[in-house]
Amino acid sequence: MDAVQKANSGHPGMPMGMADVAFVLWTKFLKHNPKNPEWIDRDRFILSAGHGSMLIYSLLHLTGYDLSLEEIKNFRQMGSKTAGHPEYGVTPGVEMTTGPLGQGFATGVGMAMAEQFLAGKFNTESHKIVNHYTYAIVSDGDLMEGISHEAASLAGHLKLGKLIYLYDANSISIDGSTDLAFTEDPVKRFEAYNWHVQEIDGHNHAEIENAIQNAQKETSKPSIVICRTHIGFGSPNKQDSASSHGSPLGEEEIKLTKEIYGWDPERQFFIPEEALVVFRQEIAKGDAAEKSWNDVMGSFRKEHPEKAITFQNWMSGKLAVDIEKLLPVFEADAKGTATRGASGIVLNDLKDEIDNLFGGSADLEGSVKTNLKGEGRFGLDGATGRNVHYGVREHGMAAALNGMALHGGLIPFGGTFFVFTDYCRPSIRLAALMKTPSIFVMTHDSIGLGEDGPTHQPVEHLMSLRAMPNVLVIRPGDANEVAYAWKAAIEHKTGPTILVLTRQNIPTFERGEHNKPELTQKGAYILSDSGKSIPDAILIGTGSEVYLAMEAQKELKEKGIDVRVVSMPCWELFENQDSTYIEKVLPSSVKNRVAVEAGSTFGWERWVGSEGTAIGIDTFGESAPYQELYKHFGITTKKVVEVVLAQKF
Amino acid sequence: MDAVQKANSGHPGMPMGMADVAFVLWTKFLKHNPKNPEWIDRDRFILSAGHGSMLIYSLLHLTGYDLSLEEIKNFRQMGSKTAGHPEYGVTPGVEMTTGPLGQGFATGVGMAMAEQFLAGKFNTESHKIVNHYTYAIVSDGDLMEGISHEAASLAGHLKLGKLIYLYDANSISIDGSTDLAFTEDPVKRFEAYNWHVQEIDGHNHAEIENAIQNAQKETSKPSIVICRTHIGFGSPNKQDSASSHGSPLGEEEIKLTKEIYGWDPERQFFIPEEALVVFRQEIAKGDAAEKSWNDVMGSFRKEHPEKAITFQNWMSGKLAVDIEKLLPVFEADAKGTATRGASGIVLNDLKDEIDNLFGGSADLEGSVKTNLKGEGRFGLDGATGRNVHYGVREHGMAAALNGMALHGGLIPFGGTFFVFTDYCRPSIRLAALMKTPSIFVMTHDSIGLGEDGPTHQPVEHLMSLRAMPNVLVIRPGDANEVAYAWKAAIEHKTGPTILVLTRQNIPTFERGEHNKPELTQKGAYILSDSGKSIPDAILIGTGSEVYLAMEAQKELKEKGIDVRVVSMPCWELFENQDSTYIEKVLPSSVKNRVAVEAGSTFGWERWVGSEGTAIGIDTFGESAPYQELYKHFGITTKKVVEVVLAQKF
Repeated sequence: MDAVQKANSGHPGMPMGMADVAFVLWTKFLKHNPKNPEWIDRDRFILSAGHGSMLIYSLLHLTGYDLSLEEIKNFRQMGSKTAGHPEYGVTPGVEMTTGPLGQGFATGVGMAMAEQFLAGKFNTESHKIVNHYTYAIVSDGDLMEGISHEAASLAGHLKLGKLIYLYDANSISIDGSTDLAFTEDPVKRFEAYNWHVQEIDGHNHAEIENAIQNAQKETSKPSIVICRTHIGFGSPNKQDSASSHGSPLGEEEIKLTKEIYGWDPERQFFIPEEALVVFRQEIAKGDAAEKSWNDVMGSFRKEHPEKAITFQNWMSGKLAVDIEKLLPVFEADAKGTATRGASGIVLNDLKDEIDNLFGGSADLEGSVKTNLKGEGRFGLDGATGRNVHYGVREHGMAAALNGMALHGGLIPFGGTFFVFTDYCRPSIRLAALMKTPSIFVMTHDSIGLGEDGPTHQPVEHLMSLRAMPNVLVIRPGDANEVAYAWKAAIEHKTGPTILVLTRQNIPTFERGEHNKPELTQKGAYILSDSGKSIPDAILIGTGSEVYLAMEAQKELKEKGIDVRVVSMPCWELFENQDSTYIEKVLPSSVKNRVAVEAGSTFGWERWVGSEGTAIGIDTFGESAPYQELYKHFGITTKKVVEVVLAQKF
Repeated sequence: MDAVQKANSGHPGMPMGMADVAFVLWTKFLKHNPKNPEWIDRDRFILSAGHGSMLIYSLLHLTGYDLSLEEIKNFRQMGSKTAGHPEYGVTPGVEMTTGPLGQGFATGVGMAMAEQFLAGKFNTESHKIVNHYTYAIVSDGDLMEGISHEAASLAGHLKLGKLIYLYDANSISIDGSTDLAFTEDPVKRFEAYNWHVQEIDGHNHAEIENAIQNAQKETSKPSIVICRTHIGFGSPNKQDSASSHGSPLGEEEIKLTKEIYGWDPERQFFIPEEALVVFRQEIAKGDAAEKSWNDVMGSFRKEHPEKAITFQNWMSGKLAVDIEKLLPVFEADAKGTATRGASGIVLNDLKDEIDNLFGGSADLEGSVKTNLKGEGRFGLDGATGRNVHYGVREHGMAAALNGMALHGGLIPFGGTFFVFTDYCRPSIRLAALMKTPSIFVMTHDSIGLGEDGPTHQPVEHLMSLRAMPNVLVIRPGDANEVAYAWKAAIEHKTGPTILVLTRQNIPTFERGEHNKPELTQKGAYILSDSGKSIPDAILIGTGSEVYLAMEAQKELKEKGIDVRVVSMPCWELFENQDSTYIEKVLPSSVKNRVAVEAGSTFGWERWVGSEGTAIGIDTFGESAPYQELYKHFGITTKKVVEVVLAQKF
């Protein structure tokens, strides 16, 4: 109450309503070490209803994490560790950034999947080195969001027995009573998903304790405990009212509430010693828990030294191999291959040595070529299958990838059609914000997919993802670029990577010393240079259109125009190069520039300048064989040649 | 089979598996007039599983719509009326574009909402002029998508008794058996949503007929009929197999299938006369049905002439009033108002005269100011409430808006925070593709929202939506621009409009003859000119940052620099102006240009050129009071002044 009041903004109602549940969970069940929030085998706790951030900040402070009372007093202020919504990487003990509803719910599923896989992979009869729960507090809003459906249905299907969600059923949302919009039956709904469902009084400690125990005992189903609570619990005038949801209670009401608890109404940020003592026992308990785990790890290390090293490498994100040596080399080939096909080959060349690559797709395994051959299906062929069938649940998949990446131990990737990044977008954004290395394999990346037509043809997607901070968008121009795109993706640890791949075949280019495919990692490079020190023009292509630029170069040469071709698979990597390299690839003196990319031309001004031209498509596509579409939309070699000639300076 | 084979791509399995259900629905129940697909009181039919497009094309051809056998033979070819997925506006009788799964499911809910509202508004005891069902064929994939949860939960809550969905439960998805990923219990799930649920053999005509009759009888709940079907029904070797899902059956298999039906295996595109006769009865039935409705309308017109005119205006999209006369005029005011607040005032000034404005929000009514005061809550205060409580279901809301816009009769708008356009994106894209005039009221449009922090602060959203074809993104710069933004939105009939509004107060500018607020409709205009015929520089602002440009203009004037300020609320409208106007506002000779917008600078090169500068934010935001954030990120008057001076040419 005090922190929200001091900030004069925030959400007091939920922290007050769920304080009882959180108290029981955090003091009687949660396995964690406040002095080492990074301890690998800790239980994961997610506050999916992130607007109630003061709840988790209170818990972290009370149980002895590195979050001082000063920080609590600086709630929602610049540079504090107590942002409006919990921020991963900012506050010790916060497992993920939450706020956009449903994301915590769905990300927890990924964490529990990682736990299940790692336990299956490493645990022995006497060494349960991976053995923890994933808890979340979820809200009415989480349950209304569609992603909660995808995630819950998937979790039930995968029988994630160590997933335990505590649902704050307080019957109040921002607009008022949930009856205004939300009258579904959560018991039936979650039973339909094959969850273990309990319904309790969320202010009765014995019921809470009993319910969590039951949830733990049910090992073959995820659990949801429907906690009937009172929002703003304890506030004499605002309890059970939407007015306690998203605004400070007001100084008078806070005093009245404190009086009810028998506290000094004038004292702010007061923590009764007898309460603190109970919470702070978590420090010793956590220390003992980690020590005990360390003992098991020690014994594990002795008995299974190789497995122990693997475990350690996986959990620390260290690659035990030189990826470059594993990458296939594709021979130059005019017919070439689809980059989605090349991606499948690369993945299967990597999978044995990088055995924590963990794949899957949203019901498009054959199309997006994510299958790790010979590996099982996760949850169906035992816990150690590395191919996940996510179903047609793109959003749920994206959040699950984030959850696995946050959990640690795995290199998670998942595939669907590029156009469906729209369905994944809130989770991609969260990965970017959290700096989570989720890998998205997005195929069928343009009108090049042909007959399926405009609903399936991405147009604006490249630009709209490039506009998002901290996302690597890589659209490789041939099979060898695909190999290094995968290397870049796996090595990129500070944010998500989106691999943008073709359905259709494209040529594999000749490679030599001057255009080695590892240059892919620079984001852009000279694929084929002009004979002149200052080229007559620069053609920039990405993905399937690099080939058009290469053909145009030949045709222009016949006309006496000697141009450079730059392949630009990744804007973000290129922008991170030093200015010398950027100037070398794109000398500012060359104004005759043409970019060609089968997508929106929006934004290409950055590279072609005011005087250059971007060839692309600024309308939706059409349903037809792809060769005809390229002609119809004027994304052709002929067009590139024409434009270069037309804008000859 | 033949069409998919000829195209050598497509999805034969679903059309074959659902042929029985579709036959019964289309010949025994569907109220439609093949010779007038626009008949207002027709039942709406949606093929949510749009990949099975050959099913609806077959039905349309067979029942006598303007879709020739030649078109069927041109399936998936350039310029045909038989695109890979059904396209609204391309094929007569196709009520919406489908393909991205879940969209049809959720859009149908909007259609049924429109029907319910209009019926409540216009029907009398003896004149049921609005009285039709919304049917959809939905698939496993639709049910896996999160949006189906949002839409189903909302539809159950709203008791949409005339919504009848036929679920093609064929147990096969692209990857194989649905058991791979999808094992939830649909009966329990839809009962949890308060739907009427039946389960039948989808090949038994009596059961199908009976189920649809039961569904019609249940008037207080939406209905789902779980039709257990065999994908690729009739194909001796591919029935019940994923191989029939997304690829042609193969010529041999087609012959074998035809033999089973006792048809000439060599004959392609053959329609037995006795089948055609049955289907073509729909022409006479449809004609009779519309005539009978016309009689009722005639009588309605006589007895309720004013209501009849209103009905006709609503359904034809004609406005009976001059919006301009209704718009409020906001006095110049340095303190000003939040543009979300101005939007709420405009809406309430319009609502009485434009009484088919139909609003709502995703549980943020108070924040996004969408409430139409004095109007009821739809579905709670009777059918004619004009404020919808969508719950925390942004995606479902967006699709519902599309459904209402497609249905006709209403001017639907819905609100949430701008950052949550990410959740709505697949539906916004579909609105753009279908040219559907859905209106999105998106507030809290930048770091200007302050303490809620980066999860709630849009950064890339303006650019990522501007990159989408056919979307009007309008970010008004003061209260008077808001008024004309609403005018533009309501008058825009060929695509969605997104109104991007502030949480925080911004000044209301002085207006005169030279900068009348109706210029908003031009997308960009000179808000405050330089005294010079060729300005020293041009400052371009949008939304809450126009004010910074105005302040900078003053400061620069003191330094002897005389600049022009251009307010640019809408790129798309501006790009549609003739080149003379564009050149007048942004003379190409003026290279010293600065744009200021509290969002990604990505793409601003289009207007500031290679030599200008965009001031914005290319990282995620922070949690703090907004004034501090503007300073922290350098989006200030001071910065604008500095940049103009630095790049003085």
